[in-house]
Amino acid sequence: MAEIQGVLEAAVYADDLEAARRFYGGVLGLPEIAAVEGRHVFFGAGTAVLLVFRPAATREPPGPGALPVPPHGAEGPGHVCLTVAEDGLEAMAARLRRAGVEIESDFHWPHGPRSIYVRDPADNSVEFASPRLWSLPE
Amino acid sequence: MAEIQGVLEAAVYADDLEAARRFYGGVLGLPEIAAVEGRHVFFGAGTAVLLVFRPAATREPPGPGALPVPPHGAEGPGHVCLTVAEDGLEAMAARLRRAGVEIESDFHWPHGPRSIYVRDPADNSVEFASPRLWSLPE
Repeated sequence: MAEIQGVLEAAVYADDLEAARRFYGGVLGLPEIAAVEGRHVFFGAGTAVLLVFRPAATREPPGPGALPVPPHGAEGPGHVCLTVAEDGLEAMAARLRRAGVEIESDFHWPHGPRSIYVRDPADNSVEFASPRLWSLPE
Repeated sequence: MAEIQGVLEAAVYADDLEAARRFYGGVLGLPEIAAVEGRHVFFGAGTAVLLVFRPAATREPPGPGALPVPPHGAEGPGHVCLTVAEDGLEAMAARLRRAGVEIESDFHWPHGPRSIYVRDPADNSVEFASPRLWSLPE
């Protein structure tokens, strides 16, 4: 059955992959699971993978003999929301503050769940929220 | 604990939200869970949510009295990978073919797992793959 079970990979774009490493790996503590210098760096994010691509490189079609991975590459601030249990969000906020990351927004939605928003070094809007935001089980 | 458990929301951008509805809702069969006309349409995707934003609208900061949701908005083809069990990928390929969606790429990675790639109407690269692609449990 062709059932869609979740999001396996979310992508953001960044011209400076080292800065992305310092943020996603260093500040957020996500394990780096793959990288091609100058093209991309990928991070494990629990049940999913966060892909950080350098669009100048990923817009190029694959070369001869390479796997036929389709090109893509966006410009401007994207968005991703990473899953943190509701009772872990305060610890995430504390971790961000300790690392000197400015919290752009931090509020509770009318139905209760909390969202915390920061910017990654490439200006992507990175949110932290619990599955309860979407009435999904934690 | 500020543990990141997964990706809760992945975002793609589209100028034509009706075309996005026909693809993500109609072809892929994802349930529409929220929409603001001219701004966004959101789809349930199993344990996550796929957000389709119209960047001309989401780049605008929130108005007075609105929740402080940070603006964002990218241009150009993005990428997302939706989770399908390995033994459901052939049914997904058949569903896409029946709907007349061109399959841009369909191959097995050197370590075995299969990836199927199509374009959404906004030219975003949409992949279908199993968690086994990243050595994660199905």
